[in-house]
Amino acid sequence: MTNPMQLIRAARPHPREKLKGNLMEWFHWLLREAEIYDIRYPVKGAFVWRPYGMKIRRNVEAVIRELHDSTGHQEVLFPVFIPYEFFSKESQHIRGFESEVFWVSKGGEAGERLILRPTSETAMMPMFKLWIQDHRDLPLAVYQIVSVFRAETKMTNPMIRVREISMFKEAHTAHADREDAERQVRLAVDIYKKIFDKMCIPYLISQRPEWDKFAGAVYTIAFDTILPDGRTLQIGTVHYLGTNFSKVFEVTYLRPDGSHEYVHTTSYGISERSIAAMLIIHGDDAGTTIPPALAPIQAVVVPIIYGEERKAVMEAASSVAERLRASGVRVHIDDREDKTPGWKFYYWELKGVPLRIEIGKRDVEQRSVVLARRDTLEKYSVGLDELEDAVKKLLGEIEENLRRSAWDRLRSSVVKAESLEEARKALGEGKIVEVPWSGDNDCGLKIDELLQADALGIPMDAPADVGGGDLRDLACPDKKASYWLRVSERY
Amino acid sequence: MTNPMQLIRAARPHPREKLKGNLMEWFHWLLREAEIYDIRYPVKGAFVWRPYGMKIRRNVEAVIRELHDSTGHQEVLFPVFIPYEFFSKESQHIRGFESEVFWVSKGGEAGERLILRPTSETAMMPMFKLWIQDHRDLPLAVYQIVSVFRAETKMTNPMIRVREISMFKEAHTAHADREDAERQVRLAVDIYKKIFDKMCIPYLISQRPEWDKFAGAVYTIAFDTILPDGRTLQIGTVHYLGTNFSKVFEVTYLRPDGSHEYVHTTSYGISERSIAAMLIIHGDDAGTTIPPALAPIQAVVVPIIYGEERKAVMEAASSVAERLRASGVRVHIDDREDKTPGWKFYYWELKGVPLRIEIGKRDVEQRSVVLARRDTLEKYSVGLDELEDAVKKLLGEIEENLRRSAWDRLRSSVVKAESLEEARKALGEGKIVEVPWSGDNDCGLKIDELLQADALGIPMDAPADVGGGDLRDLACPDKKASYWLRVSERY
Repeated sequence: MTNPMQLIRAARPHPREKLKGNLMEWFHWLLREAEIYDIRYPVKGAFVWRPYGMKIRRNVEAVIRELHDSTGHQEVLFPVFIPYEFFSKESQHIRGFESEVFWVSKGGEAGERLILRPTSETAMMPMFKLWIQDHRDLPLAVYQIVSVFRAETKMTNPMIRVREISMFKEAHTAHADREDAERQVRLAVDIYKKIFDKMCIPYLISQRPEWDKFAGAVYTIAFDTILPDGRTLQIGTVHYLGTNFSKVFEVTYLRPDGSHEYVHTTSYGISERSIAAMLIIHGDDAGTTIPPALAPIQAVVVPIIYGEERKAVMEAASSVAERLRASGVRVHIDDREDKTPGWKFYYWELKGVPLRIEIGKRDVEQRSVVLARRDTLEKYSVGLDELEDAVKKLLGEIEENLRRSAWDRLRSSVVKAESLEEARKALGEGKIVEVPWSGDNDCGLKIDELLQADALGIPMDAPADVGGGDLRDLACPDKKASYWLRVSERY
Repeated sequence: MTNPMQLIRAARPHPREKLKGNLMEWFHWLLREAEIYDIRYPVKGAFVWRPYGMKIRRNVEAVIRELHDSTGHQEVLFPVFIPYEFFSKESQHIRGFESEVFWVSKGGEAGERLILRPTSETAMMPMFKLWIQDHRDLPLAVYQIVSVFRAETKMTNPMIRVREISMFKEAHTAHADREDAERQVRLAVDIYKKIFDKMCIPYLISQRPEWDKFAGAVYTIAFDTILPDGRTLQIGTVHYLGTNFSKVFEVTYLRPDGSHEYVHTTSYGISERSIAAMLIIHGDDAGTTIPPALAPIQAVVVPIIYGEERKAVMEAASSVAERLRASGVRVHIDDREDKTPGWKFYYWELKGVPLRIEIGKRDVEQRSVVLARRDTLEKYSVGLDELEDAVKKLLGEIEENLRRSAWDRLRSSVVKAESLEEARKALGEGKIVEVPWSGDNDCGLKIDELLQADALGIPMDAPADVGGGDLRDLACPDKKASYWLRVSERY
């Protein structure tokens, strides 16, 4: 006879008061207490990944690699040094990055003027020139996961605004024409959606306004997510670079008709900011929940032992862990003798292990275990015969719940506003607002100024329905709106 | 009825003349033609890993990670920036590295004096101080795989002497006492043996003489291998650092008896040089052989097609690849129509794929395939029923043969010499010589000078049998030798 799965404690998730009260204070607390990341390294804007954080990160990197490898990208590794001579070739690019560049020198050495890469377009282009001869060499799509460097003048923020971005996945591609390059832009957007879906991070996709596009791009498509304090965080960008870089680096290819044409290039990047977003979005006052697909430990077994029964309970716990491991679950037994079960519950909730398995004397007698969800704190009693099925079912439900709740919060945060007053009110409530905009840059900048917020850009993920109305530009009332402009307070 | 495995071409390996003629010229040719690594990047001592090289490298990294993770090391990631103030604390360390340091600056910024890590002892120590409180926090063992930077003044050499060492695995550990730290040193030596065994790289283990130990170490144990031109290459080092670093960084722990003691630390490193050694040691005039455990492609299927039979041969080739993939072999079908089979043979031999599978019309009819070994060029005809077994058997034999041949060459290169004349002659023949040495540093340096070669150190991998003889120090004939000193020409 098998025990069916029985709910023995209803959903009662941890509150999110501390979290919402001072988000960055909470985040620093989480990074420290969950031993993810150490913010005490003695250089401004430079931090240390601790072992638990590193394991999360490597799972995320594996997802990123898999999605790039399976879509025609090849992994490469370029040097961190870029000659200033190359870096400064593309005029928009250098103007955008110059103030944030770190210079490298050797004691007493003159000659070479080197910088630390802030992004690798200008490192790759000289090699693309060597690698690309004719149309058969196209498209070319490479990526690397590396450190890049930005001498941030703004206040730095652990994992969010750092001077060494240490998990920068940058892809760089070259194509025969604009059409093929824009096909790649859509592919990149699709890959990023899949990465964020795996991390249960909801996103808004916007075409950045002219004044905020990547330095050197024709246009930039950006992914933003919203944090619990109502501010948005850019978590990924995709750039169509046209022939801006190929022209200055003279990267051409021979066409079948014998002519030479400049290649069209794209680049797209994602960083450890996505991990920060994941930890924060699934956070609460007791810690966070790591989505099961990325959790270093998916289920932790906590033996509940009082006095004499130690041996039987420990044997049952080992057997449960063994069975789960054999069925592909990443499981850990917390058999520390100097900690109480309550202390362990707190510890693993903090670290975001999605499922806890409790086994006590009574469970052993009844051939059952207790499964406790990290996200909702629901508890179930499950017969041992159902163990693997129940664990996998719950891990699946946790993933779905994390994704759905986060998407619900994001969707309910986006509102349309047709007047300044409405827009200000919504921003004050921590919303993302969409306001009518003519498309004129000056009007757009004025909207930013009037609202004391930042334009994310034109929504790419929702139908542009302004055409049907009779809306006027929010900042320039003499102009008819052709777009919605998405605006928020940004990190 | 099944076909047994039949030898249809005897061993006749490619010559190694070009290789021995000018080793570095050959190596550059291999890196370029096999598309492993591009040496044309426009910064001195900085190079580009191409996709095929990157795949080899990632397989090596996986071995390194597995061997560290399974022996109590935890992966971390530290910043590349080290404050000069910290870097200069340990007086030997700074003296050893100062001339090779890259400085970092931001346009117009004063204040922070930062360097790019050449190695991370001085980045880790301030954090160890925070992480280690009492004896229960010990031992602490962490590692990272990162880029480190050395402003080499000597001539740089692709993958061997570079200014950005981009695959530096550095482990750093802290212990309660010397005994435990030295236990870690032995563990590290053991891990490195396993890594090199997997790469089929033979090695000599020597304790470096005082004048060549790591700057800041009590002693250094080094792994060297020998390249076909007779020069040795250092491929790994293990350092016992004593309390040299813990004292200046004040890293102490509370003992059970209430006293505070300095921790004893170790560090050990291995880099992409090991990959260079692997490619070179298993090289010949047609390319290289990648040991099967690390080969991105373990077996390449080349369909041999003339005229009409295309469909049947391609089907057979796909089925062979599918079966091998299902049994865990990394297999690739080269189905390019614009290349001849001969061209493909050349191409994959260059890239070092250990096994080639040829399938032509006659093979299809006979329900067999031809297996060709990259190392010996032996060919076998094998019935399809034996496919998986035969492929795995041959991959195993290739690995063994690579390892054994390389070890044979290394062993036959080490000779003992008791006179200057003998020693010079042996060095001239590209040998590694072991000469009698009193242990006195001045005498040792004089040996280096007299022989115009470099001391590798005291052999740790062979019995020190000088005690039984009546040998005099090679350079200081008035002194009795207590050690053999291993000497070679080094890269």
